[in-house]
Amino acid sequence: SLPSPSRTNLFIAPHTLTRTRLSRALSSVQTQNEASYPPKSILIVNKLRTEPVVGAIGELLDHVRKTYPGVKVFSEDRPDIPSGTDVWRPGPHSEKIDLVVTLGGDGTILHAASLFSLGAVPPVLSFSMGTLGFLLPFHIDDFAKGLEAVFQGKATILNRMRLSCTFYDKERKKMGSADDEWQVMNEIALHRGSSPHLNTIDIYVDGQHLTEAVSDGVIVSTPTGSTAYSLSAGGPIVHPSLSAVVLVPICPRSLSFRPLVFPSSSSVTLCIGDRSRAAAGVSMDGRVSHVLNPGESVTVQASPYPVPCINRSSISDYGDEQPGDEGVGPGKEDDWVRDINNLLQYNATFRSKALLRYSGKT
Amino acid sequence: SLPSPSRTNLFIAPHTLTRTRLSRALSSVQTQNEASYPPKSILIVNKLRTEPVVGAIGELLDHVRKTYPGVKVFSEDRPDIPSGTDVWRPGPHSEKIDLVVTLGGDGTILHAASLFSLGAVPPVLSFSMGTLGFLLPFHIDDFAKGLEAVFQGKATILNRMRLSCTFYDKERKKMGSADDEWQVMNEIALHRGSSPHLNTIDIYVDGQHLTEAVSDGVIVSTPTGSTAYSLSAGGPIVHPSLSAVVLVPICPRSLSFRPLVFPSSSSVTLCIGDRSRAAAGVSMDGRVSHVLNPGESVTVQASPYPVPCINRSSISDYGDEQPGDEGVGPGKEDDWVRDINNLLQYNATFRSKALLRYSGKT
Amino acid sequence: SLPSPSRTNLFIAPHTLTRTRLSRALSSVQTQNEASYPPKSILIVNKLRTEPVVGAIGELLDHVRKTYPGVKVFSEDRPDIPSGTDVWRPGPHSEKIDLVVTLGGDGTILHAASLFSLGAVPPVLSFSMGTLGFLLPFHIDDFAKGLEAVFQGKATILNRMRLSCTFYDKERKKMGSADDEWQVMNEIALHRGSSPHLNTIDIYVDGQHLTEAVSDGVIVSTPTGSTAYSLSAGGPIVHPSLSAVVLVPICPRSLSFRPLVFPSSSSVTLCIGDRSRAAAGVSMDGRVSHVLNPGESVTVQASPYPVPCINRSSISDYGDEQPGDEGVGPGKEDDWVRDINNLLQYNATFRSKALLRYSGKT
Amino acid sequence: SLPSPSRTNLFIAPHTLTRTRLSRALSSVQTQNEASYPPKSILIVNKLRTEPVVGAIGELLDHVRKTYPGVKVFSEDRPDIPSGTDVWRPGPHSEKIDLVVTLGGDGTILHAASLFSLGAVPPVLSFSMGTLGFLLPFHIDDFAKGLEAVFQGKATILNRMRLSCTFYDKERKKMGSADDEWQVMNEIALHRGSSPHLNTIDIYVDGQHLTEAVSDGVIVSTPTGSTAYSLSAGGPIVHPSLSAVVLVPICPRSLSFRPLVFPSSSSVTLCIGDRSRAAAGVSMDGRVSHVLNPGESVTVQASPYPVPCINRSSISDYGDEQPGDEGVGPGKEDDWVRDINNLLQYNATFRSKALLRYSGKT
Ligand SMILES: NC(=O)C1=CN([C@@H]2O[C@H](COP(=O)(O)OP(=O)(O)OC[C@H]3O[C@@H](n4cnc5c(N)ncnc54)[C@H](O)[C@@H]3O)[C@@H](O)[C@H]2O)C=CC1
Ligand SMILES: NC(=O)C1=CN([C@@H]2O[C@H](COP(=O)(O)OP(=O)(O)OC[C@H]3O[C@@H](n4cnc5c(N)ncnc54)[C@H](O)[C@@H]3O)[C@@H](O)[C@H]2O)C=CC1
Ligand SMILES: NC(=O)C1=CN([C@@H]2O[C@H](COP(=O)(O)OP(=O)(O)OC[C@H]3O[C@@H](n4cnc5c(N)ncnc54)[C@H](O)[C@@H]3O)[C@@H](O)[C@H]2O)C=CC1
Ligand SMILES: NC(=O)C1=CN([C@@H]2O[C@H](COP(=O)(O)OP(=O)(O)OC[C@H]3O[C@@H](n4cnc5c(N)ncnc54)[C@H](O)[C@@H]3O)[C@@H](O)[C@H]2O)C=CC1
Repeated sequence: SLPSPSRTNLFIAPHTLTRTRLSRALSSVQTQNEASYPPKSILIVNKLRTEPVVGAIGELLDHVRKTYPGVKVFSEDRPDIPSGTDVWRPGPHSEKIDLVVTLGGDGTILHAASLFSLGAVPPVLSFSMGTLGFLLPFHIDDFAKGLEAVFQGKATILNRMRLSCTFYDKERKKMGSADDEWQVMNEIALHRGSSPHLNTIDIYVDGQHLTEAVSDGVIVSTPTGSTAYSLSAGGPIVHPSLSAVVLVPICPRSLSFRPLVFPSSSSVTLCIGDRSRAAAGVSMDGRVSHVLNPGESVTVQASPYPVPCINRSSISDYGDEQPGDEGVGPGKEDDWVRDINNLLQYNATFRSKALLRYSGKT
Repeated sequence: SLPSPSRTNLFIAPHTLTRTRLSRALSSVQTQNEASYPPKSILIVNKLRTEPVVGAIGELLDHVRKTYPGVKVFSEDRPDIPSGTDVWRPGPHSEKIDLVVTLGGDGTILHAASLFSLGAVPPVLSFSMGTLGFLLPFHIDDFAKGLEAVFQGKATILNRMRLSCTFYDKERKKMGSADDEWQVMNEIALHRGSSPHLNTIDIYVDGQHLTEAVSDGVIVSTPTGSTAYSLSAGGPIVHPSLSAVVLVPICPRSLSFRPLVFPSSSSVTLCIGDRSRAAAGVSMDGRVSHVLNPGESVTVQASPYPVPCINRSSISDYGDEQPGDEGVGPGKEDDWVRDINNLLQYNATFRSKALLRYSGKT
Repeated sequence: SLPSPSRTNLFIAPHTLTRTRLSRALSSVQTQNEASYPPKSILIVNKLRTEPVVGAIGELLDHVRKTYPGVKVFSEDRPDIPSGTDVWRPGPHSEKIDLVVTLGGDGTILHAASLFSLGAVPPVLSFSMGTLGFLLPFHIDDFAKGLEAVFQGKATILNRMRLSCTFYDKERKKMGSADDEWQVMNEIALHRGSSPHLNTIDIYVDGQHLTEAVSDGVIVSTPTGSTAYSLSAGGPIVHPSLSAVVLVPICPRSLSFRPLVFPSSSSVTLCIGDRSRAAAGVSMDGRVSHVLNPGESVTVQASPYPVPCINRSSISDYGDEQPGDEGVGPGKEDDWVRDINNLLQYNATFRSKALLRYSGKT
Repeated sequence: SLPSPSRTNLFIAPHTLTRTRLSRALSSVQTQNEASYPPKSILIVNKLRTEPVVGAIGELLDHVRKTYPGVKVFSEDRPDIPSGTDVWRPGPHSEKIDLVVTLGGDGTILHAASLFSLGAVPPVLSFSMGTLGFLLPFHIDDFAKGLEAVFQGKATILNRMRLSCTFYDKERKKMGSADDEWQVMNEIALHRGSSPHLNTIDIYVDGQHLTEAVSDGVIVSTPTGSTAYSLSAGGPIVHPSLSAVVLVPICPRSLSFRPLVFPSSSSVTLCIGDRSRAAAGVSMDGRVSHVLNPGESVTVQASPYPVPCINRSSISDYGDEQPGDEGVGPGKEDDWVRDINNLLQYNATFRSKALLRYSGKT
């Protein structure tokens, strides 16, 4: 059954859970995400199958087979699934997954989360082939350590909030079937798309009219998504453990319409104005879905189902802890703070450090 | 005694308390702010004494005397205190105040809060002479209704978070006396002031180095302060019931150093770089205080003492409620959302609505 | 024949011509725009035909018939042309127009200019029904005075620069027919449109690679267009008498890619990156045209054909002048500076001036 | 004698002169900057005297002595002048300088220009020890080639516009002596400095009131200065060969007060509002000078004396040219476009290219 609203809060208060040991987190959310601990099944998610990636997946599978022999490994349904894995298809009757392992960039994690759009997401252990990502992946070379931290119940998680989106027609009737709800990890964006005209969107917060936006569109973003489209559109960078909703206009005509941040308990409704010159295309985490016409609307709220992402500091912490130590102090080894400076190159001075020589004809 | 850290959280989670009836809020925080309910003492705070203001204060005092006869009324110590009020001086042994009534703009409320810099702030009922303010005052004509809502325990409050600031010398020893802590309601701003040179500020979040800011300075703001200096410097607008800390650079050299929002549990340290070409003047809520030299620093954290501001919707809700109704639903009648559109003139179209006639010589 | 490059400069240096008397301006550009002075033909351009507008057009036509009897009046080809006007169709063999009169908003002037996309634009006298517009229309009630200033050769003009856009295929061959060039008065914008993916656009200035933009798109704008889409996307406001080209990225991933301003002698080429994940839709002055695919490009340059807009101050100056006075001093009565404050509501204070009363249930 | 206003325009139209051969540029401006060609005197300007710098100066002096034997070399008056150079002091009767050679960062070039605040600036050949600078220095290793290009009259120059600033008291009388005018290469900035209060500045363009700025201050910048303070405050990046004036508010209360760009023929007056809560400190190119009190003002205009900076592409072009080739085509080898991408790291992707490994305890 769906979590009751009162439980929801527990779930979406990422800061409380953030540094909780995964083992405890899992037991406390058991009924919801049904993920067993230690994991009995793993889903591997990966988009590009370049040679180094195929090699890395092979090694990882070998390692799992040897080290965690009873564990079943699944792959998404596609022609080139790695040998030794079974096909897994999303849906209400899909097989239970206890751990998701992703290999790729931020987009791969977004995709993995989207596979669990109906309810709880199993813990996500993400690897990159070497580039730093905003969603804070482990380096692929650390896969054994990462898995060990998970299987020994020592990994800590960052619950990344999601937003659930419900669409309504002109009569404020829910569009689609009863449980047709969309979960986004980054953002939902309404955009004029290829219409040359500005659209007009009425924005309501908790039922109160906030403003009428005349613009290219509007973004409602999670803290996780604050470094994605929202940032490009002028939004602030929000720490992923804050429970908040970010509202950012895209190229608004009104210069005083600046980005806003609301508590995650707020519900934001975007309604295409009756006389809007353009409809609005909807994209969620970068995937195009609906078109909303004048009078139609979408309501966005914190989802009861965050994405439990395993912290990279799970590794560096590992082995440090004292018996009885049930959690990691707030902020200690915050992967996000550590990485954001590199990711955004805050300190990039204007001057190239390199010795630049301009001689003769270059 | 000071609230223990664990109690702190209760206190600084404004959203929980936001729409709580004042009567309950007060009893639950009793030991901290010691404000009695119903109020036995009122402090009137006001800066400018123009004629209409003096008249309004007179009427208000008359009303209090007649309607709430036992209540003592205090004034700040200044030559022109209204007759019938006693002088009140801030400090550890000051007389207990159960309600603060302010008359003036946003600056008057900032000033009132600053009078209670050592501990809890009594509930604040604020009035303006007619202009809409960001801190959401009542209209002065509604003073009787406002007081009635308070005395009948029906007023709801918005706990506006404050930040406490502690200053350290080059050896990381606390400057000043042991309990020398500053509470700000808007922000603390470090600025190069009249030095022509950029300063260099190392920023740490929860002890981790975030970045080195080369800029005019840095602002650490509350959600309340997000519409003040922080907004002018490019920061987002943050709903005052969110528990968060906003970090905004002032004219930074690095174009990718964008405003950041952290959970209110974060502690932010700003340390003037050892080789910074300029010192940094500190201003807190618009009052200048310290100068920080290279190596010196300030640590900013959510204060255990928010400012309990009485909601204007206390009036419109009044009389509506059912027996047993212990709180107001979230977001119902959110003064802030209702006002922000007017305050920022989001909808100000570029075209003046007026019929503009340009004829002959103007 | 097309103007030679050397003549071009004369033409696109709006500042020189800005305050020149129309009569002189026309004679000096005669061979190009072929507009006779005093005007023998007028084209009326108008989009919406609401009742007050129809009335206004009627009055204006009456006035022209009586006051300037030999003058022929044309209308665009549409079912509801005003009686007494002849149909006019744009094209290489269209009838010669000596004066364009527009009635409507900024969009109407854009449309009027677009009718003369192959060469010179006749002087444009624009009227609005009362709202202030960025393209600085006269108030409709002043139509007689406006026409008088024109017919007496006393009107001064602001030459609003246009940009000419040439499209190239992957082999850098010109797309379309030989003289397929587009003239824009506001801007050319490349945008990912309804693709969910960022596109990659290589930007060259005078043949040198400036940068690779990963973004929603890129705007190349005139000073006139700087208050239109460019402004919403974060661009500066550029005085229309400056000869410059504005380059503004739309929601770029790189935070340091800020708006740029180049001399109008620069040529800007936008080329869709070979590996761009999305194509780019092109819109020019708000009208959608091409789609550019990876490898295809557009080159944008100052057009030899500006739009000569009649200054509103032509009226207020009128009658003031001394014999022999051949021009109006720079900046004297600059409509743009006078209006921009109102248009942008710079001075809009945050506080509503209105006395806001919140009492009882609102 | 001072150049007459009519000559001024020639001089401040940098685009015309930009790519002109230095030899021609010098002869055409001869009467003004009196710089002889080929140079007979060189002024060396440098701030820091670190060991590598002292070495480089030594080598450069040796080279000049050997290669251009008759040329006199001067140094600024300071204790540690290089041997073999004479002291030079700025002022109306200072010795004539035909070439300025700077060694250092952007600040050194600003300083060199400030030495010629009364009139024309000799051509400036600037070197850096290896870092890329916004003012486009040569690499020090190329000093022989740089000098050769100058002495052979093959160097091209970029005339960087300056602004001249005149200060007025409350009665609009000029402050200081009759010819007390300041020339800035980057910008003049008015700032509240260490006052905690916003100041109010009335801005006039060509005598017309543009707006009243309530802010930390206002910047009036050249295109050269557009990448300095102006950029940090949110201004656009302007190509240095455009003749324009940039106006940027610093932390304005009004969100719609956006950066503006005017033709260089505009005169901008900033007047401290009569009721401004704060005075404004003035800094010019980063040097603090006046304080302006309420009622006092400064008028800023394009200066007749630009700074003729020798283009780095003088070297790469060198040797290429055909006899009779009198200039370099516009935009060909534009140092600025070539460098700006590196300088601003537009293309800095968010992801570090480095292979980041996080293993064990880091
Ligand atoms: N103008 C812009 O900045 C636009 C951004 N997007 C973003 O792209 C996302 C979809 O990503 P992909 O499927 O990978 O599409 P994609 O392949 O088009 O990549 C989008 C870029 O955004 C990055 N990204 C994704 N999530 C991020 C996050 N939470 N923080 C920082 N960077 C993040 C990716 O690493 C990639 O560089 C959308 O959710 C949206 O946020 C989509 C359209 C336009
Ligand atoms: N460039 C800027 O925007 C600057 C802003 N300030 C702000 O001024 C505040 C002090 O205010 P006053 O004592 O009244 O000084 P003040 O009389 O100089 O007024 C500052 C302005 O800020 C407004 N303001 C104050 N608190 C606000 C809030 N929370 N949200 C929106 N607007 C607010 C006031 O109503 C007033 O319009 C400081 O806390 C700082 O936030 C101070 C310096 C520069
Ligand atoms: N997000 C945005 O701000 C967008 C803006 N546009 C602008 O719309 C223009 C087309 O205008 P319409 O045909 O009237 O379409 P429209 O009816 O969609 O109106 C666009 C708005 O822009 C205003 N506008 C037009 N030219 C202007 C100028 N030079 N300065 C200031 N405001 C101006 C119009 O008055 C109108 O308010 C395009 O050239 C483009 O600049 C187009 C798409 C998105
Ligand atoms: N918040 C800010 O960005 C501030 C910037 N400044 C700038 O500093 C300049 C003075 O420079 P310095 O004497 O070197 O002082 P400084 O040593 O304080 O350096 C200022 C920085 O600005 C850079 N800079 C100078 N001129 C530049 C230009 N035209 N384009 C790009 N970067 C430039 C310098 O390389 C240096 O990194 C002023 O003219 C002003 O533009 C001054 C105060 C504050």
